[in-house]
Amino acid sequence: MTSAQKIRVAVIGASGYTGADLVRLAYAHPNMQIVALTANSHAGKPLESVFPHLSGLGLPNLVTNDEVDWTGVDAAFCGLPHATSQNVIKALPEHLRIIDMSADFRLRNPETYKQWYGNEHAALDLQATAVYGLTEHYRQDIAKARLVACPGCYPTAVLMLLVPLVAAGLIDASDLVIDAKSGVSGAGRALKQNTLFCESGEGMGPYAIGRHRHSPEIEQELSLAAGREVTVSFTPHLVPMSRGEFITAYARLTAGSTAADCQAVLVERYNDEPFVNMVPDGVLPATQFVRGSNRVMMGVVPDRIEGRVILLSTLDNLVKGSAGQAMQNFNLMFGLPEATGLEQVTLFP
Amino acid sequence: MTSAQKIRVAVIGASGYTGADLVRLAYAHPNMQIVALTANSHAGKPLESVFPHLSGLGLPNLVTNDEVDWTGVDAAFCGLPHATSQNVIKALPEHLRIIDMSADFRLRNPETYKQWYGNEHAALDLQATAVYGLTEHYRQDIAKARLVACPGCYPTAVLMLLVPLVAAGLIDASDLVIDAKSGVSGAGRALKQNTLFCESGEGMGPYAIGRHRHSPEIEQELSLAAGREVTVSFTPHLVPMSRGEFITAYARLTAGSTAADCQAVLVERYNDEPFVNMVPDGVLPATQFVRGSNRVMMGVVPDRIEGRVILLSTLDNLVKGSAGQAMQNFNLMFGLPEATGLEQVTLFP
Amino acid sequence: MTSAQKIRVAVIGASGYTGADLVRLAYAHPNMQIVALTANSHAGKPLESVFPHLSGLGLPNLVTNDEVDWTGVDAAFCGLPHATSQNVIKALPEHLRIIDMSADFRLRNPETYKQWYGNEHAALDLQATAVYGLTEHYRQDIAKARLVACPGCYPTAVLMLLVPLVAAGLIDASDLVIDAKSGVSGAGRALKQNTLFCESGEGMGPYAIGRHRHSPEIEQELSLAAGREVTVSFTPHLVPMSRGEFITAYARLTAGSTAADCQAVLVERYNDEPFVNMVPDGVLPATQFVRGSNRVMMGVVPDRIEGRVILLSTLDNLVKGSAGQAMQNFNLMFGLPEATGLEQVTLFP
Amino acid sequence: MTSAQKIRVAVIGASGYTGADLVRLAYAHPNMQIVALTANSHAGKPLESVFPHLSGLGLPNLVTNDEVDWTGVDAAFCGLPHATSQNVIKALPEHLRIIDMSADFRLRNPETYKQWYGNEHAALDLQATAVYGLTEHYRQDIAKARLVACPGCYPTAVLMLLVPLVAAGLIDASDLVIDAKSGVSGAGRALKQNTLFCESGEGMGPYAIGRHRHSPEIEQELSLAAGREVTVSFTPHLVPMSRGEFITAYARLTAGSTAADCQAVLVERYNDEPFVNMVPDGVLPATQFVRGSNRVMMGVVPDRIEGRVILLSTLDNLVKGSAGQAMQNFNLMFGLPEATGLEQVTLFP
Repeated sequence: MTSAQKIRVAVIGASGYTGADLVRLAYAHPNMQIVALTANSHAGKPLESVFPHLSGLGLPNLVTNDEVDWTGVDAAFCGLPHATSQNVIKALPEHLRIIDMSADFRLRNPETYKQWYGNEHAALDLQATAVYGLTEHYRQDIAKARLVACPGCYPTAVLMLLVPLVAAGLIDASDLVIDAKSGVSGAGRALKQNTLFCESGEGMGPYAIGRHRHSPEIEQELSLAAGREVTVSFTPHLVPMSRGEFITAYARLTAGSTAADCQAVLVERYNDEPFVNMVPDGVLPATQFVRGSNRVMMGVVPDRIEGRVILLSTLDNLVKGSAGQAMQNFNLMFGLPEATGLEQVTLFP
Repeated sequence: MTSAQKIRVAVIGASGYTGADLVRLAYAHPNMQIVALTANSHAGKPLESVFPHLSGLGLPNLVTNDEVDWTGVDAAFCGLPHATSQNVIKALPEHLRIIDMSADFRLRNPETYKQWYGNEHAALDLQATAVYGLTEHYRQDIAKARLVACPGCYPTAVLMLLVPLVAAGLIDASDLVIDAKSGVSGAGRALKQNTLFCESGEGMGPYAIGRHRHSPEIEQELSLAAGREVTVSFTPHLVPMSRGEFITAYARLTAGSTAADCQAVLVERYNDEPFVNMVPDGVLPATQFVRGSNRVMMGVVPDRIEGRVILLSTLDNLVKGSAGQAMQNFNLMFGLPEATGLEQVTLFP
Repeated sequence: MTSAQKIRVAVIGASGYTGADLVRLAYAHPNMQIVALTANSHAGKPLESVFPHLSGLGLPNLVTNDEVDWTGVDAAFCGLPHATSQNVIKALPEHLRIIDMSADFRLRNPETYKQWYGNEHAALDLQATAVYGLTEHYRQDIAKARLVACPGCYPTAVLMLLVPLVAAGLIDASDLVIDAKSGVSGAGRALKQNTLFCESGEGMGPYAIGRHRHSPEIEQELSLAAGREVTVSFTPHLVPMSRGEFITAYARLTAGSTAADCQAVLVERYNDEPFVNMVPDGVLPATQFVRGSNRVMMGVVPDRIEGRVILLSTLDNLVKGSAGQAMQNFNLMFGLPEATGLEQVTLFP
Repeated sequence: MTSAQKIRVAVIGASGYTGADLVRLAYAHPNMQIVALTANSHAGKPLESVFPHLSGLGLPNLVTNDEVDWTGVDAAFCGLPHATSQNVIKALPEHLRIIDMSADFRLRNPETYKQWYGNEHAALDLQATAVYGLTEHYRQDIAKARLVACPGCYPTAVLMLLVPLVAAGLIDASDLVIDAKSGVSGAGRALKQNTLFCESGEGMGPYAIGRHRHSPEIEQELSLAAGREVTVSFTPHLVPMSRGEFITAYARLTAGSTAADCQAVLVERYNDEPFVNMVPDGVLPATQFVRGSNRVMMGVVPDRIEGRVILLSTLDNLVKGSAGQAMQNFNLMFGLPEATGLEQVTLFP
């Protein structure tokens, strides 16, 4: 495939961590050419002045969204903040296929969006056409979609783990406790006191208990799997590491089901998936095992309390939790092998 | 009080992190004189060759346990591993009062001890006289005890938080999910692959699910508070920080009780305690807020799920979780103001 | 000493890391009472809303500088940024003794100040009376001063190490290479991209080479010791730790002098100093050994290159490098034993 | 190229960090097939039991060195400790081409080897044929060699930076001060107290001053570049990060030469090199910018002292400092494009 034959993409909002990781992955992708990188506040600069680790890759300079000539561009990845995303995306030309990494098109119910994000949605017609981009669960719809709304990092880790078990009726969807832990990059590159090295280093604690915006997304998909409305207990914690997300979910088994059943269903469900695997025997999942890769690693452990099970999953929030899953969806949308550009092995240590 | 009038103490097992932190606190204690420091494998060396940060404090050299002349020694802190502790302690002269930081005398039921630790207990008569050293809950017994068994770090953080609520009947003791997170110093100074910087840095995951030895200790005390046998779901995680422990406990409220009731009971219970406080309004607890201090900081948050509550506590595992609580017990045993030597303010950042 | 007899102090600029550490130390000081805490941008709030780790200490709420009633206040610690400091301090009433932790009064030559800081100095008359607060080297002047200008963190670490050797003529002051490493708290609590956890974690590099504002301060004092003008090569690096500063200085020995001579001079010079010590035999200094304490730890190692020596020093930038030295100067100024409130043992690990 | 046509390699000593990183890179290499992985102490286990992050890659189980059938194997990477390496390598069959990552064949002078490593070299005839694997500087010899001795991580970072400048006569080779900083993975995966998380986290300091075994290697190559014997001042420091190495070198310019000349020589020398680049304008090198990649990033800054220059370089010690450079040499030896399998973009954050 010559350069002329490559799929031409733009990255909108390229000055954040998600944008940078998308560029990292795109560089390894044989069929993709980045033709535009936007970042309104840094327009005119080379990307390497914002991210020196991306120097020497031969990328175009940063421009404003308005400066992009969309003729001949095939696809856009969008890494903007919520609310901004919907306004930028609705102005994009029709011929573009769009992989959105923001929260704007994830929630099917506009009321829920408004309740959790505080603003009226400005592109409800587009919302109605968007496909939720949890790749392994919406593959066929994604392949055909014009607009894919990639899930949040927490929802990806939670739903990959719990949806098959709820759908199989093995665990009680009305009694799910989800204790989540995230590295600091989940908070983005914006300047906030709590993500300073001295504030988030050498210590940890929870945040946004009961009001994290990934909750409705988790509940939306678990409700679909359960066939009835589900509310979850979801508590995120900020942990002193840059990348990585860990889910420890505590569930009640339904009558007659066991931890072994849960393990079997997950093995069966993800057996042929390139990016999902159960942890090897004798090992428990850890974020170190997936850093920099597009993998989800899972585990199942019986609880000491009769009738309960402990369910574990981990991923890199910037890869499978964001840019990697976006790339995986891109591959699906353009008929490419799904793992193209995504075979990076975990960087450890 | 002259040096001759000071209470003369020995620290048995002074080459571990707990021993070192005890020395740190002892140095600030106006009524205590360290007259012996033991560490069989380092006998003959100055303490500063093992812990350069303790140089210049005028401490005695390390000796073996056998070399200590116990005449004139008033008390011994014991920081040895379990199983070793019981054998060393039963050989100590009668006149000594003993503050043990190991697990050997914490479990009231010898069968439980054997089941979780694997060996027959070698000092059951002593065990029968030991007092569980959760200071704020066993103050009167501790004051009179010859042998105090200081709680483990996780049990301290869990029990301080949950015992009052279980005792008050506000939460259902049969449905407690305890998600615990610890810094790496909890694993001690022994050489283990998983506590190398490159293995435990920049990542996290759970360990010992369903088989952590602090579980029976937690269950023993919660059962006493509940008035019936309690089994808990307890899952510890290793987090990339040196010090600090965090408990996120998920509980079902009993009929008619609320999160506000839980808050009120904790406020009332610990109102006059110098080392326990609820988190200030608008803030959630975090390990950063207690590092290096003897404090426990707690919080209560209503769950989004009706009838559930999220309970939070944090402490420094080497201080309130070990050496600090040991010192607090020492003060009680010798009739000193309880906060003596323990007023260090949290080191942040 | 009753509360009425305590020395009454204000902390101006209490919402930064230096202010917080001063409060930590003040709490341990038996003869000091904090009667006012200022922070213009947080006025009206309790200190614990800005620093939850300082909750429960019974401190006054934050106020603006203008709101302080200076009657009855004996001393002010000032932790404001440079340029602001000089304007605030010149407006303070005459009866106050002032310990300034900013850079404003450190440079004796107004031209040098202007050249490095960019503004005309607004309080040159005060500058003329200020004493440079390198405690162990200006003790008598500090004791009598109204205004003490505490050295920067790097200058403290460098000058404590090099001044005695330059003064003794053992090393060539015209050929000094100073490689400095600092933890991230040295950059303060202001929001900057390079001090985000994700930017400064898991990596390191130099900054401000050849233009760090601590250079003229180092040169001023080394020039005085050498008896002639000295220019140094000073290169700071940002290292992923919160606290700690390390100096590796490379020097040429003068004819006939040896590394052993350097060691001997430092031992002799600091033999009776409570806060300065040479590293124990067989150990090299490390920031871990001084974290949270007011100590400077030093070492001397012969270079493999004939006629050269490697000189090492380390301190905690927020303590001996700022708030601790300020407190030490306060003690001198008020005739108290110099170590009062400053005997905290290093927090390790 | 079909699997049958791939170059078949063995990795000897695959249970260390260097071995693991080699596997990571090999997985991305289209022309290489790993047919054997050895680790005597873990023989019989799957690699994923030693490195869970390498699960799911379809690799052969670990075996002992003796169990490998070398028929049909084309090349061996050797990641064993020094002294062991020479004995294992001299027993390998003649047809194998060998890329050694240990120190055993780096030093041309057997006396120097013995002096620094303490043992008589057991394979001096092989040593005489080995080529020093600093890729960009010995390309032609490496291409033809049977045995390539890959440089140490520090020497790679130092020599890439200094050799062109010494060779060009721009800096005085008799007055070089090299201050080096390394992440903890440089110490390997063996259990040592100083590389525990609690010991090396949140702090830093120097080690092995004047006696680090990378010194003779640096001096060997700088002496060749200078045309006379060179002794350097080399001081390594251990920094709390897993990967990354940073060199701050302080040099005296020769008469008439300038920092700009140094910059120009480096630009010219490395202009066409895929893995070497000068830092972008306005930025200083940092280890964050090269983590996980095979790049060396350099910078030149004039010193404030007349006639001196500060030279900077950074690389990932496990990649360009070890496994990456080994892979680069492999590509040369087998006539492949040099960057094959090595185009991973830096993982940041």
